[in-house]
Amino acid sequence: MNILQIINAKKKGKELTKDQIDFWIKGVMSGEIEDYQTSALLMAICLVGFSEEETFNLTNAIIDSGIRVDLSEFYEKSVDKHSSGGVGDSTTFIVAPIFAALGYKCAKASGRGLGHTGGTLDKLESIPGFHINLDKDQFKEQVKNIGIAVISQSKDMCPADKKLYTLRDVTETVDNVGLIASSIMSKKLASGVKNIVLDVKCGRGAFMKDLDSAKALAAEMVKIGKKAGKNVVAVVTNMDYPLDEFVGNSLEVYGALNVLQGARNNLYEVAITLCSELLTSMGVENARAKCDEVLNSGLALEKFKEMIKAQGGDLSFLNKEHLLNAKAIYDVKAPASGYVEDIDPMAISGCVMLLGGGRLKKTDSIDLYCGVETKVHIGDHVNEGDIIATIYSKEKNEAAINKVLEAIKIGQDIPSKPQMILAIQN
Amino acid sequence: MNILQIINAKKKGKELTKDQIDFWIKGVMSGEIEDYQTSALLMAICLVGFSEEETFNLTNAIIDSGIRVDLSEFYEKSVDKHSSGGVGDSTTFIVAPIFAALGYKCAKASGRGLGHTGGTLDKLESIPGFHINLDKDQFKEQVKNIGIAVISQSKDMCPADKKLYTLRDVTETVDNVGLIASSIMSKKLASGVKNIVLDVKCGRGAFMKDLDSAKALAAEMVKIGKKAGKNVVAVVTNMDYPLDEFVGNSLEVYGALNVLQGARNNLYEVAITLCSELLTSMGVENARAKCDEVLNSGLALEKFKEMIKAQGGDLSFLNKEHLLNAKAIYDVKAPASGYVEDIDPMAISGCVMLLGGGRLKKTDSIDLYCGVETKVHIGDHVNEGDIIATIYSKEKNEAAINKVLEAIKIGQDIPSKPQMILAIQN
Repeated sequence: MNILQIINAKKKGKELTKDQIDFWIKGVMSGEIEDYQTSALLMAICLVGFSEEETFNLTNAIIDSGIRVDLSEFYEKSVDKHSSGGVGDSTTFIVAPIFAALGYKCAKASGRGLGHTGGTLDKLESIPGFHINLDKDQFKEQVKNIGIAVISQSKDMCPADKKLYTLRDVTETVDNVGLIASSIMSKKLASGVKNIVLDVKCGRGAFMKDLDSAKALAAEMVKIGKKAGKNVVAVVTNMDYPLDEFVGNSLEVYGALNVLQGARNNLYEVAITLCSELLTSMGVENARAKCDEVLNSGLALEKFKEMIKAQGGDLSFLNKEHLLNAKAIYDVKAPASGYVEDIDPMAISGCVMLLGGGRLKKTDSIDLYCGVETKVHIGDHVNEGDIIATIYSKEKNEAAINKVLEAIKIGQDIPSKPQMILAIQN
Repeated sequence: MNILQIINAKKKGKELTKDQIDFWIKGVMSGEIEDYQTSALLMAICLVGFSEEETFNLTNAIIDSGIRVDLSEFYEKSVDKHSSGGVGDSTTFIVAPIFAALGYKCAKASGRGLGHTGGTLDKLESIPGFHINLDKDQFKEQVKNIGIAVISQSKDMCPADKKLYTLRDVTETVDNVGLIASSIMSKKLASGVKNIVLDVKCGRGAFMKDLDSAKALAAEMVKIGKKAGKNVVAVVTNMDYPLDEFVGNSLEVYGALNVLQGARNNLYEVAITLCSELLTSMGVENARAKCDEVLNSGLALEKFKEMIKAQGGDLSFLNKEHLLNAKAIYDVKAPASGYVEDIDPMAISGCVMLLGGGRLKKTDSIDLYCGVETKVHIGDHVNEGDIIATIYSKEKNEAAINKVLEAIKIGQDIPSKPQMILAIQN
């Protein structure tokens, strides 16, 4: 077997065997297969296609490139949520506490923000003292005791995924459902969790732009997970608009806090659906009511605080005064009267990038306290001069104001309210 | 413009613009575009396709990566022949002398053998003293005076082709008609010759295995050449069998010498067709008769000798005794009586490789005096024990004998004689 035969087989439309895929990924890790050979194969995969079986085998080959986390101590109760990435998406801070409050074990390995999507670790680090430096045993102990812990994904887990993704990113070979599914699912499966809910974002602010491709990705990931013996459910959610009013690192912690303290908005709707769909698939009856109960009683909020405290975070910071704090706080006003027809998530995240709150490259340092708070929703009526958004940054930034004005479109038509839950796949 | 946009455009089935292709090749040469990006683009080209216009633009971008030879002094009379590579193909040693004998100027830049195809330079170097170290001025002077000179292709000519080919070779992206045509034609056009005849080999021993793909390549190359203002004709010739009885470096010089001295076999047929088709396209009347005349009169042989002498070669070596000389000379006998049904060119060249007469890698050193002489032709009747081939090598090699027995199939059916000229494209 050699890599040329493998590239040739895929180029000619053949299904790669498990042995061929294992050979490829082992060669990627050992360096025996060159990047230019892998990129040619990746392009052939994108253009010719990658079957369910191939995707499953690639997922396993990626897992085998690194370590697997052992959560056997509380395997049946272990839960995880994964989002394919969006704007204003702080569901983790609601979903994980709800699970913990209900007695489940949420062992979460998260990442940092890149491009237009924020990262859970960055958001949490806006709370002074919060750290992600838990060793393996501390991590498991915290999950066992409190029900939640959030750490950085180990570099020893799925190292082949990092190599493949780095190459895909610079060779226009990102957008294949099989490659995306194996990238996400390899990490989820290696993390040792049994019950997984996948939030597949769909729309302008998401990687999957249309419902068909989002559903295809959801279906593929659920199939891989089930084939690996996991309990997996996927929810396709709307990312045509920012999920929450608060976009930016500390702002999104505040947005989640709002829901934990009683706000019942789009962010709530998506979070509660993710929780209840996973619990229902686990055989829990009246799952949504149970989730609402721990949310309404404040038990979920308590779990969130316990997690922050356990990882060194300053609890006195969890309020508006601290989380919505910036040297310059200034409003954006409606340029005309009418109805809010659109809020473009890419323009809103573009504004946060402008302010220094996002990364273009992994090594960029970012401002954790800048961001945008939109004060209107799709379909709202506004009068000229009304405040439609507030910007938080180090200094007043006219370009950021223009970016928000570009994002929020005011017109004369009354648009319908967007539906948040687009499909459920299990 | 950036390379990701270009890869993406091709991946989505778009035709690349001249600017995009120029940007790509300039980036390949400067190193700004990485090999893994070029290989992804090459794979997309192979799978999506490459139009005539794209092929023409790539050809020009490759030419612009290096120097162009200036043959303006005898441009109208300048001729060249290119073969896409086969087994036992020594037509250059017949074609070039015929052209020279008729007063044309054959300025030939050749290569070394690689894989199953021999190289003109290696073959000539089997003649003691022969050298290819002519500088630009010496080369032109020799072409002007004698009508033929053969040198190694300059490294400064089409350097982008070398980079692309090296990458295509290790990423399974060789077999695209546009890429092959631009690779061949860039070198032909940069060489400054006006009149070009292309010998597109077709069959098991050739790169193009079937007539349709050989004709497609021929058509593409002729179009590029004409678009560049050249006079180009392509002849698709049979490479299902070795072209000549003599295969191996010094053996092929002998095979050509045979034709220059009067043999009228398949090698003659292909060589005379290449010459006469090009001359006819140049407006020469009764071209074939004129070619035959200089061949029959010995004038072509004289031109060949003049060229050998001018480049330092020992003329006393041009005979059977020297060219068919090896320490071990041994026969292969017919294992049964019957008709010669097949002579597999890949098994014959495989035998020469076994004997040390071919290269797997460019840096391999080779034995210039080993080879195989087949003594039968398709359709010949043989009796068990008749000599069907003679092997020339350093020592007797049983594996080589078996390889020849594998190549020459004897059966009870009488096969038809192969047709040598399969198509003419102009």
